[in-house]
Amino acid sequence: MKRIAIDMDEVIADFHAEQLVRFNYKFNKNLTSKDVQGIKLQKLMPHLEKEIDDLINQDSFFRNLKVIENSQIVIEKLSFKYEIFIASAAMDHTNSFDAKLKWLDVNFPFIKRSNIVFCGDKSIVKADYLIDDHTHHFANFSGQGILFTSPHNINETDYPRMDNWKDVENYFLGDI
Amino acid sequence: MKRIAIDMDEVIADFHAEQLVRFNYKFNKNLTSKDVQGIKLQKLMPHLEKEIDDLINQDSFFRNLKVIENSQIVIEKLSFKYEIFIASAAMDHTNSFDAKLKWLDVNFPFIKRSNIVFCGDKSIVKADYLIDDHTHHFANFSGQGILFTSPHNINETDYPRMDNWKDVENYFLGDI
Repeated sequence: MKRIAIDMDEVIADFHAEQLVRFNYKFNKNLTSKDVQGIKLQKLMPHLEKEIDDLINQDSFFRNLKVIENSQIVIEKLSFKYEIFIASAAMDHTNSFDAKLKWLDVNFPFIKRSNIVFCGDKSIVKADYLIDDHTHHFANFSGQGILFTSPHNINETDYPRMDNWKDVENYFLGDI
Repeated sequence: MKRIAIDMDEVIADFHAEQLVRFNYKFNKNLTSKDVQGIKLQKLMPHLEKEIDDLINQDSFFRNLKVIENSQIVIEKLSFKYEIFIASAAMDHTNSFDAKLKWLDVNFPFIKRSNIVFCGDKSIVKADYLIDDHTHHFANFSGQGILFTSPHNINETDYPRMDNWKDVENYFLGDI
C-alpha cells in the first residue's frame, strides 16, 4: 500500500482564512484573499510581522480553523487505497500541538494518532507522496511532491498542482 | 551524509529512573532497576497500571529527566559525520511535547528544532539508522534498527545492541 503524507495548514485546515479574519479584526482592515495572492501576509506588511505572528501563536487560532472543502470525504476515500499520514511542520508554532491534535480528533476521527507526525524538516517523512502548500518541503523529500494551491504559492510551477480536493481525488483515484 | 534518528526516552532521557523514583515515592516502595529487568513496570504491577501512567502524564515528569550518560558528547561528535534527528513517539503522552522540546533545548542545544520529530508509528521516519529501546519501532522501519539497552528489553536478540553511548560511538565512529 503506497503512503500519502498530508500537510495540515492550508491543505486540510484553512489557516489563511482564519489569519485574514483575525488580522482584519485587529487592525480594522478589509483585506481579502486576492490582496495576498502570491505573497505571505507577513511579507506584505513587514512592519507588522511580529503582530501577525502573535495572531497565529495562540492555541485558539488552531482550534478554530475551518476544514478545507471536501478534504474529509476525499481523505477518507483515499484511506481505503493508500496509507494516510498527517505531517505538520508544527515546530514553528510549538504551542499548537495540543490544539492541532484535538482539531484532527474532531475533524478527521478516522486518522489514528499513530499516523500523525509533527516535524520541522519534512525530508524526515518517509512517504510516496507529500501533499503540501510549501514547495520548500519538496526539495529534499524522497517521494513525489504535490502542491496544494494556496494564495501564497500561485506562482509556483515546478510540481503537480491541486487546486482543491476534487483534483486530489482525481489524481489518486481517477482510474477507479 | 547518512542520517541517524535517535529516540528520546530511555536512549538520551532517563525515563525509567525517574519513573522508578516517582513510583517508589508514591507507593512507599524500594524497587530497583533489577526488579523490573525484562518487563515494564505496568506489566509487573497491572493493578496499578493507571496510577503508573498518571505518574508519567505530567509535564514535570519530562522536564526532570536526567540525561543518559555520555549521550550529549557522543551525539555532538556524531553530528559532524551524520545528520542527526530526534524521533520521539510522543503521541502516547500528548501533554509532553512542550516539556520535551524545552528539555532538548537545554540538554541538546546543538540539535535544531527542524531536526525534531514527534510521531506515533516510526515507520514514517526516513533515516538510515534508528537508535531506539523498543524493537516494535524497527519492524516497519526502512533503515537499520539499533537497540539501546533498557531494563525492559534485555531479552531481545534480533538487533545490534548498544549497552551505552560508548558502544554507539564505537559502532558509528570506531573506524576514525
